[in-house]
Amino acid sequence: MQFTQGLHRALQQRPDAVATVCNNRIRTFRQLHDRVARLAGGYTSLGIGCGDRVCILSLNSDRYLESYLALAWIGAVVNPANFRWSAQEIIYSLNDSQCVALIVDDTFTPMLDEIRRGAASVRTVIHIGDHGAPADTESHEALIEKSTPIPDLGIGGDALFGIFYTGGTTGTPKGVMLTHLNICTSALALLAEGALPADAVGLHAAPMFHLADMMMMTCLLLRGGVHVIVPTFRPEIVLDLVERHQISDLLLVPAMLQMLVDFPATSERDTRSIRRIMYGASPASETLLLRTMATIPTASLMQVYGMTETAAVMTVLPFSMHRADGQHKDKLRAAGRASFHVQIRVVDAEDRECPRGEIGEIVARGPNVMQGYLNKPEATQAALKGGWMHTGDMGFMDSEGYVFIVDRLKDMIISGGENVYSVEVENAIAKHPSVSACAVIGIPDPDMGERVHAAIVLKSGAHVTQDDLYAHCRTLIAGYKCPRSIEILESLPVSGAGKILKTELRKPFWSNQMRAVA
Amino acid sequence: MQFTQGLHRALQQRPDAVATVCNNRIRTFRQLHDRVARLAGGYTSLGIGCGDRVCILSLNSDRYLESYLALAWIGAVVNPANFRWSAQEIIYSLNDSQCVALIVDDTFTPMLDEIRRGAASVRTVIHIGDHGAPADTESHEALIEKSTPIPDLGIGGDALFGIFYTGGTTGTPKGVMLTHLNICTSALALLAEGALPADAVGLHAAPMFHLADMMMMTCLLLRGGVHVIVPTFRPEIVLDLVERHQISDLLLVPAMLQMLVDFPATSERDTRSIRRIMYGASPASETLLLRTMATIPTASLMQVYGMTETAAVMTVLPFSMHRADGQHKDKLRAAGRASFHVQIRVVDAEDRECPRGEIGEIVARGPNVMQGYLNKPEATQAALKGGWMHTGDMGFMDSEGYVFIVDRLKDMIISGGENVYSVEVENAIAKHPSVSACAVIGIPDPDMGERVHAAIVLKSGAHVTQDDLYAHCRTLIAGYKCPRSIEILESLPVSGAGKILKTELRKPFWSNQMRAVA
Repeated sequence: MQFTQGLHRALQQRPDAVATVCNNRIRTFRQLHDRVARLAGGYTSLGIGCGDRVCILSLNSDRYLESYLALAWIGAVVNPANFRWSAQEIIYSLNDSQCVALIVDDTFTPMLDEIRRGAASVRTVIHIGDHGAPADTESHEALIEKSTPIPDLGIGGDALFGIFYTGGTTGTPKGVMLTHLNICTSALALLAEGALPADAVGLHAAPMFHLADMMMMTCLLLRGGVHVIVPTFRPEIVLDLVERHQISDLLLVPAMLQMLVDFPATSERDTRSIRRIMYGASPASETLLLRTMATIPTASLMQVYGMTETAAVMTVLPFSMHRADGQHKDKLRAAGRASFHVQIRVVDAEDRECPRGEIGEIVARGPNVMQGYLNKPEATQAALKGGWMHTGDMGFMDSEGYVFIVDRLKDMIISGGENVYSVEVENAIAKHPSVSACAVIGIPDPDMGERVHAAIVLKSGAHVTQDDLYAHCRTLIAGYKCPRSIEILESLPVSGAGKILKTELRKPFWSNQMRAVA
Repeated sequence: MQFTQGLHRALQQRPDAVATVCNNRIRTFRQLHDRVARLAGGYTSLGIGCGDRVCILSLNSDRYLESYLALAWIGAVVNPANFRWSAQEIIYSLNDSQCVALIVDDTFTPMLDEIRRGAASVRTVIHIGDHGAPADTESHEALIEKSTPIPDLGIGGDALFGIFYTGGTTGTPKGVMLTHLNICTSALALLAEGALPADAVGLHAAPMFHLADMMMMTCLLLRGGVHVIVPTFRPEIVLDLVERHQISDLLLVPAMLQMLVDFPATSERDTRSIRRIMYGASPASETLLLRTMATIPTASLMQVYGMTETAAVMTVLPFSMHRADGQHKDKLRAAGRASFHVQIRVVDAEDRECPRGEIGEIVARGPNVMQGYLNKPEATQAALKGGWMHTGDMGFMDSEGYVFIVDRLKDMIISGGENVYSVEVENAIAKHPSVSACAVIGIPDPDMGERVHAAIVLKSGAHVTQDDLYAHCRTLIAGYKCPRSIEILESLPVSGAGKILKTELRKPFWSNQMRAVA
């Protein structure tokens, strides 16, 4: 099975149905298919071949989808960059995966020079923006216009589809290698769970570089549904699109859900076309879920819990468990149960299965589990110990197989739907000349779920402000990873073995609530 | 993904739900899991190892299901024998696949001596019947009782799951090699099509050796549904079970569907629990479908068109296209459209895709396509030419991707849901001393769909009756393959190139109807 499967099937079964809607561009599957076949021809003429790695750095667009499809068409491997990353982080991923080409939109062309200087392997830049293509770049539209369509090479199965970079616990990002089979099996399982049924009109509101939207994309392609695409999430634009295109399906991270229900106009607009909302990628509170049900009563909710390393899907909390009337209330805090294709266990530090109700690490096995981390055999071996993906998430399982997550990977912070690895932030802070020691934790934030908070010990006689520290970090890491608040301590609490006790640091902030429950 | 996935998942999520119902035996998933783990331990103690081939020769039973699961548990490869075959045909398959063990029920123990003499590789016989185990056999129940449970070896993915023998066009059966991935991906796709939703109670009415029931089995396992098992299909027993166990889902071949709607009591019994009927494996007439809808009005119908070589699934005609009110009437004769995981094309003799509406051979590509025919590299290469499974079925595709089958493999006869290859029957007939030449065709039969008919040229002065010929063939091939009617001709019609023109022979029988339309 290959990522392009859905496009071929849709062309065969509903060629003249609408495939993509983006800005004022509306295209059918026949048009999409033709454009992708030409674009693939164009890529080939630029010397991009099977197995070559190509980075996409762009906000959401129909051209982003076309790029994904055309790369898969010729067996190239995509590196969809997290557009919130700094140029240095993106350059790291380009060098790590030895990308030969970069696909970039208008928003990120200002970063081009720096990226080109830092990533010598990039021979070609393709521009997918609306403005004219910058110097020394190829235009996506021109490539489509001038190239001859070529047949799909049929690369799929265990062949690599993409390398998806996630923040690394050691401070460097890790490239998660996912195959066509990884992606397609997760998508099939989600369809079997009832996601995106026939005649779905789906909105790409989550960023296309992220595995969550990748599931929306793959499922919609397999269903032959309509892809409505918005560059970035903004409640007012989402509401406009829902009304205009009668959108039936949303996939949102909880931070987006929060923004949507907080937005005053949401309850006044016509949202009755919305039949289903999938959510995931970070914890959603019961309050948020109940508010969503009240604000958009036509929508059934489904939670998908997973991670990049498991091609986004591990457990599913189905529509039937999201009830506004309080039925199944005890399950609403669960992340769901193992989906059809996955085996899930909760294990102790020695990888022995924990009794039900006992907290341990959640591990997963199945056709959706990554091949490994690119160029990181040791990290791969640790993550896939014994053939099971060790998620780093702590939780327990009840007698009916529902998984409850009680803590994310000990030190990880989930802020606005993005994973922030504290070590990476600590590494940045530690480079500040005034800082002697530091520890970064997540503290509750009404908008972001958690926000990044730094506890700092200063060097003798030194001084630092919140603004100083933020500005310093911003030169090294993405804005969303930088600390939003700080506290100055005389010393950090340490265990007998000398390890910093973050649990102690967290206590004052989390005393009234459980942290990071799903 | 592995065949045992559903059992593990059901144990985790609904351990005390009913798993199997067979005769008066009712067992939960917890019990089924325990029995399978012990049985696997028992197999291991008998020296059956990973990769070993094991034949099952049995009517349907809960023990058949347990055997499938326990073999997959230890990575053994199953050869589920077609129980309508003669001992010689079964022996062929045992030798071809070098089976080390045979699992047999009471019905087939009378064949044991002959099979043992013919198949030297069979070291162990395991008895899954209700009566006492015959001499020199191991008892299934005793193995479960005395063995220690062992953990699932976790064999799956591209590992071989089974070798499924189909009648060979050259007169010898071919062993279709199917992997765990082949089976599981087809099952996931069927679930995505809406087959066997939550809380399904399914009936195993089709034989368990057949890929059609294998889909029922795998889907039901993945859903954690109830397996109600009947030894062989009989309308009165099926109706009893439907009432007693509130069966929601049936999978029937058209011959069974015909028997069910023809059975006088069907309309008088309470069949309201039946929500869905999947059918496939041979053509079903529009009349039969409309009668089914009228007789069991609570049932939605779904057609699945496929073959052993594609793990049973190629196209699906969904519930929504089966309407008693005449809507979508033009599609009711279609076999459906490519399912989520399959690519389907109609091609000419040079493998070029035919324009829509033009008749050609139906070919398929996808993760469900077999690895090949065991020990038959040339047949494998021919069948999988260019990476596409050449089905031998002739048909066309309409503008919406619906596939219409206009003729089965030119010479194949489908009788009572079973494929009968004419060459094999002709080989048998030709061995009769009175026969000079013969040709075997399928002719219309109200009960069987088609029946096997032989056109014969006698040797000079010789004589043969229908009964003679049947009895002669019965010593060589299974009863359902033997000719049910004969005609004596002076000569067979031949083409200029000397090939027998079966189309000419068929004409008088098929003048009023199209042959083998789906």
